[in-house]
Amino acid sequence: MAPGKKGILERLNAGEVVIGDGGFVFALEKRGYVKAGPWTPEAAHTHPESVRQLHREFLRAGSNVMQTFTFYASDDKLENRGQALKITGAQVNEAACDLAREVANEGDALVAGGVSQTPSYLSCKSETEVKAIFKKQLDVFMKKNVDFMIAEYFEHVEEAEWAVQVLKASGKPVAANMCIGPEGDMHGVSTGECAVRLVKAGAQIVGVNCHFDPMTCVKAVKMMKDAVEKAGLKAHYMVQPLAFHTPDCNCQGFIDLPEFPFGLEPRILTRWDMHQYAREAYNVGIRFIGGCCGFEPYHIRAVAEELATERGCLPAASEKHGLWGAGLEMHTKPWVRARARRDYWEGLKPASGRPLCPSMASPDGWGVTKGHADLMQQKEATTQEQLKPLFEKAKTH
Amino acid sequence: MAPGKKGILERLNAGEVVIGDGGFVFALEKRGYVKAGPWTPEAAHTHPESVRQLHREFLRAGSNVMQTFTFYASDDKLENRGQALKITGAQVNEAACDLAREVANEGDALVAGGVSQTPSYLSCKSETEVKAIFKKQLDVFMKKNVDFMIAEYFEHVEEAEWAVQVLKASGKPVAANMCIGPEGDMHGVSTGECAVRLVKAGAQIVGVNCHFDPMTCVKAVKMMKDAVEKAGLKAHYMVQPLAFHTPDCNCQGFIDLPEFPFGLEPRILTRWDMHQYAREAYNVGIRFIGGCCGFEPYHIRAVAEELATERGCLPAASEKHGLWGAGLEMHTKPWVRARARRDYWEGLKPASGRPLCPSMASPDGWGVTKGHADLMQQKEATTQEQLKPLFEKAKTH
Amino acid sequence: MAPGKKGILERLNAGEVVIGDGGFVFALEKRGYVKAGPWTPEAAHTHPESVRQLHREFLRAGSNVMQTFTFYASDDKLENRGQALKITGAQVNEAACDLAREVANEGDALVAGGVSQTPSYLSCKSETEVKAIFKKQLDVFMKKNVDFMIAEYFEHVEEAEWAVQVLKASGKPVAANMCIGPEGDMHGVSTGECAVRLVKAGAQIVGVNCHFDPMTCVKAVKMMKDAVEKAGLKAHYMVQPLAFHTPDCNCQGFIDLPEFPFGLEPRILTRWDMHQYAREAYNVGIRFIGGCCGFEPYHIRAVAEELATERGCLPAASEKHGLWGAGLEMHTKPWVRARARRDYWEGLKPASGRPLCPSMASPDGWGVTKGHADLMQQKEATTQEQLKPLFEKAKTH
Amino acid sequence: MAPGKKGILERLNAGEVVIGDGGFVFALEKRGYVKAGPWTPEAAHTHPESVRQLHREFLRAGSNVMQTFTFYASDDKLENRGQALKITGAQVNEAACDLAREVANEGDALVAGGVSQTPSYLSCKSETEVKAIFKKQLDVFMKKNVDFMIAEYFEHVEEAEWAVQVLKASGKPVAANMCIGPEGDMHGVSTGECAVRLVKAGAQIVGVNCHFDPMTCVKAVKMMKDAVEKAGLKAHYMVQPLAFHTPDCNCQGFIDLPEFPFGLEPRILTRWDMHQYAREAYNVGIRFIGGCCGFEPYHIRAVAEELATERGCLPAASEKHGLWGAGLEMHTKPWVRARARRDYWEGLKPASGRPLCPSMASPDGWGVTKGHADLMQQKEATTQEQLKPLFEKAKTH
Repeated sequence: MAPGKKGILERLNAGEVVIGDGGFVFALEKRGYVKAGPWTPEAAHTHPESVRQLHREFLRAGSNVMQTFTFYASDDKLENRGQALKITGAQVNEAACDLAREVANEGDALVAGGVSQTPSYLSCKSETEVKAIFKKQLDVFMKKNVDFMIAEYFEHVEEAEWAVQVLKASGKPVAANMCIGPEGDMHGVSTGECAVRLVKAGAQIVGVNCHFDPMTCVKAVKMMKDAVEKAGLKAHYMVQPLAFHTPDCNCQGFIDLPEFPFGLEPRILTRWDMHQYAREAYNVGIRFIGGCCGFEPYHIRAVAEELATERGCLPAASEKHGLWGAGLEMHTKPWVRARARRDYWEGLKPASGRPLCPSMASPDGWGVTKGHADLMQQKEATTQEQLKPLFEKAKTH
Repeated sequence: MAPGKKGILERLNAGEVVIGDGGFVFALEKRGYVKAGPWTPEAAHTHPESVRQLHREFLRAGSNVMQTFTFYASDDKLENRGQALKITGAQVNEAACDLAREVANEGDALVAGGVSQTPSYLSCKSETEVKAIFKKQLDVFMKKNVDFMIAEYFEHVEEAEWAVQVLKASGKPVAANMCIGPEGDMHGVSTGECAVRLVKAGAQIVGVNCHFDPMTCVKAVKMMKDAVEKAGLKAHYMVQPLAFHTPDCNCQGFIDLPEFPFGLEPRILTRWDMHQYAREAYNVGIRFIGGCCGFEPYHIRAVAEELATERGCLPAASEKHGLWGAGLEMHTKPWVRARARRDYWEGLKPASGRPLCPSMASPDGWGVTKGHADLMQQKEATTQEQLKPLFEKAKTH
Repeated sequence: MAPGKKGILERLNAGEVVIGDGGFVFALEKRGYVKAGPWTPEAAHTHPESVRQLHREFLRAGSNVMQTFTFYASDDKLENRGQALKITGAQVNEAACDLAREVANEGDALVAGGVSQTPSYLSCKSETEVKAIFKKQLDVFMKKNVDFMIAEYFEHVEEAEWAVQVLKASGKPVAANMCIGPEGDMHGVSTGECAVRLVKAGAQIVGVNCHFDPMTCVKAVKMMKDAVEKAGLKAHYMVQPLAFHTPDCNCQGFIDLPEFPFGLEPRILTRWDMHQYAREAYNVGIRFIGGCCGFEPYHIRAVAEELATERGCLPAASEKHGLWGAGLEMHTKPWVRARARRDYWEGLKPASGRPLCPSMASPDGWGVTKGHADLMQQKEATTQEQLKPLFEKAKTH
Repeated sequence: MAPGKKGILERLNAGEVVIGDGGFVFALEKRGYVKAGPWTPEAAHTHPESVRQLHREFLRAGSNVMQTFTFYASDDKLENRGQALKITGAQVNEAACDLAREVANEGDALVAGGVSQTPSYLSCKSETEVKAIFKKQLDVFMKKNVDFMIAEYFEHVEEAEWAVQVLKASGKPVAANMCIGPEGDMHGVSTGECAVRLVKAGAQIVGVNCHFDPMTCVKAVKMMKDAVEKAGLKAHYMVQPLAFHTPDCNCQGFIDLPEFPFGLEPRILTRWDMHQYAREAYNVGIRFIGGCCGFEPYHIRAVAEELATERGCLPAASEKHGLWGAGLEMHTKPWVRARARRDYWEGLKPASGRPLCPSMASPDGWGVTKGHADLMQQKEATTQEQLKPLFEKAKTH
């Protein structure tokens, strides 16, 4: 940590609001550097300028945490289903740490190393094997001396506990996020119980990330907070939701929606939705508030603008905005200048421009999870023969 | 032009497809570098790394043209309504030319200098005054030796003709784009007639950009082509539409939609919409095919992927994609692997996730244009007194 | 005509508003007396109480015209495609006249006999054959001494002219309605030209009925009025539209919509939509204002309530209503009493309660009309062999 | 009961499906005989032909029960808020019994007398006072010798118990319906507990009617069945839901929707929705299956058609229909004949034709019920002074 910066627990213990960043894989997929499907972060190694620029944009938007771009950066994932990248997890993780630290040094941000769920767990590998994967990643983060660790995107609390146990041994503060909603984890463990187990495993910060829209995630974290408090435990809370509206999801989240991942555009949240989210998250007592897939820098800026009073500052990027659309006062057209006011944007129900499309979808709901044969992972590319039964089983929407 | 590169007219005369880039002001607004309202491009001077990175992403996505980030970079616009940037148009234009050239040199792209409509025209300044503004910008482009010029985003054909006349004098090839749809310009000149006048003024390439969705813009350019041919003239055609669905627009385009500019998210086109657009544009005989506001690099990539056979190549960024979702064959979840096929994405009607929102909106329709008092521009910031009658006149939606 | 009643032309010449009734086939289909598909009116003969009751409801709602329930009551239609009703056209027409007269006598209403397009025309029968069908129906109407005649629901102006020529010979006033919209008839004759030809053929009242929603129909009749006036002719105008929203129709009207005829419910107009319709029809100069398929008595009452001032009276059924929801002042729940006011209902954008459904549909658009082999009619029931190629050609929606 | 007819309990004990009728107040409001607001049934006395005709249509559609048109026919309701009808409850109840019996005698239907919740209960009158109201109505039903009694449309289980206790004393079979959904009654009593209490009070048949759409009501009755069985009790089950889609309701049901009662059209169920409902109700073990507000005769016919195999017969009105649209085989247009098949209608997602409207609404949610001052009923008409605070409190939608 740069001299003079307060650590993550110091900040949270002091009651400060900590703003996270947005999801790198979706943002960089749109920019051409990440492949939807494997979703791996090799761009940290191959195209560092793209990753550095995205870090900078989030920093400028108000993020206090630069999360290393190491999602799915375990060797078993980098090799999955025929990727053949010829890049090791260690290379990616090292490059990602350097980029995060470089940009964090440009402002008041901390560096968080990150690990996430593994294909090995889905393929029923043992606790020892899975923990070894986390340990291998942790070794890089320790070498690069990140400020704290985040274990995130876990669908099964058992695997999340294993991750926390490994990370905890490092002595760094540990945050743990499930990618679940109010219905609990994929094995039916309730959301509250997941949180209790993660705190007992050693996490100082617990919450959820990804898979559901902001209001749903806040509701889930509230359930976590209630359960942890009821159990007589103490923790801090974080939330890093999607920037997509998902009122129609089942327990698997947006992965099950027919629009995932290439038709989600109509669901993208506006900046005004983000104001509501930030306020609601703050109101239920969450202090580490960020984003995941779908968040662009302006979404994080909206979070920072909503909480400007609580944080005592506006982010740098607000010089190019103005609260509640104030920048529109400079617009050429008078009817657009007339929109430079809060009640206009707060009340707007934005149209989709898609009269042939519905407003909600039926999730796929295959209902399979760890232990099901369809979920065994493999190094080889998926064959057409393997795809055929999937195509037949699939719904058209 | 770098040695060995063919010029824009050589390419179009040879029947090649030329892919344009996407709109910088909207993309950089989301990244925190452009202010919605003034929409000016000072980031070319103040944050060159952000502009350079966006150029690179479009290049990687398949763009053959790096358009200088000089939209609204005239002095009268930079000073409008209290901006007080203390940056001159010349500084911005010079920086933008250098960035475009730097990235163009990294691939097979040309640099196009750009001018657009002026606040002075709206404020009823004389032909001499308006032409002087274009000339001042052109001087920079000539000094920086751009490959060709684009006059774009004109709502009134009269002003566009003035621009073409100024640019034409440089000897560079000139493209001219109106920001109109099939209903014609803001003074009621038909779309076809606009094109005829621009060709007569000296433009070798004509078309439309911004303000309407892709299919509407293609329809407008088709009207232009029919009229130019009927007049016995010759030209090339280009189109650079919005990446927003706008079935509900009136003649003013998306500016009149209640969602402009901060609630347009549900209207964003998917990559599959872009396939349709690229094919339709090609089919009606347009060969310079790009994008404007709302286009992200992956939208341009989709255009390049649809026309891969015609162009004989895939863009660099396709290494992170796969045609029609092929990358999903590597996805962990079997039901997502089942989406790795063209008919799935072609048939999908994506839901908005917004059941409380309508699918279409009523445009504002104030119906004022050049000559109306409400459209007089000013250096001073808009006052609350000036805003009050606008707020009262404004609809809530 | 009952002594003391003014005839239809007297009323229209005096500038009075004449309110029509609603469509019987759709209303009685919902009540269980008409079969969708053949759409024939044998209930006038077999279940007179159901027809009498519907007449009474429309009279009570404000109708000034009791239209005989004789839609499609020609022998060629009653025998089409295996109906085997063993009831003659004459029997149906006679019964229908008696019922209309009985109820008309209960109030200030006139009886209008009606003829409509024939399967014979679609099957390319000669002018002589088609006219003989109209003449046979007319004989009954003359015997029963109806007050005037309406030729309605014609897709081809040529057949409508034939009908007018036959009816005109009776000496009764003749109204003629095409079932077309602003795009013209099925052979491409413009809407205005259709009206001119019908007036020249002898119709004193011209307009459109069925196939399109109220605002579209009013627009079409406006085009008729403009053309008739431009041709230096004189006529009265009538409109009897659908009570379904059809913004997505092509020239064939609602028949082409995927929801026709058994899924149209979400498109049904509210009574407040009817207020708008009545006002708009009145404003463009239409004075015979009624309804067609989808109209229930309360829809006609809304037309009568909107035009209460112009007509100088409220309909009998308004004792069970109250203008603009005033009856809600008596509701038990306070928040429903709060809806007893005009601005509430005028501003309401009613939700569909169908989040999985779109707001617009793609019409079928087979594009076949008179002369196409698929449209040849037959006495025999449709066979499965005949249906198979249709099923294959059909879209799913 | 007519000689030879089996009673309601005999039928249900034998496992027969009993089909109810639809809601009279909404159907007759559209026909011009009932006033929305008070919703009282004086038409049984003043316009018997309209009530008789509706009974006949339901009989013809397959109803096995003619429910007397006596909803809200208590003296305290007939006098509420300035109605001044000068008709007594006894007069209405007597006329309604005669009409129901007359039509029941035309087929295999039973007559059910009906009582419903009272304004007196909402106004906090005593058990004695409320029971006296039910007793007064029951006296008429006993005099007219109805076949069984239905207590329906109760929001508070306490009042429903009082009704059952009064009716039970007559010796007639008693059915009891709450107008609640899965969230329980207005005082927070769970849906299952309501059913248990009603069975204990003496009801042989329990269920829900009105307020929610069919699938929601079936879900609520399933909860009742589970609770009754868990309590070791025995009962038969009935369901008479709305014919409106209400996915967006809160516990108060459709009364709280902004569209209630004059903008509900887009929510009306299709006949195909009714097939699904009938099957689902049957599958969960409900055997008395009917409808409430919004049901037209064709909706009941669809229920009867879906259960034709189980019942061993089709209703009379099916002669004018054909299963799954078979009547369309006789349609003139080939593309409509192509819709004469089950998979077409089962798969259709009908469009609303309302692109400016949302698919879901926000209920009003005033959250007041019995005991709240706003719910005190009065004989005097609501004054403008009383309305003003309501208008101010009301949302616009």
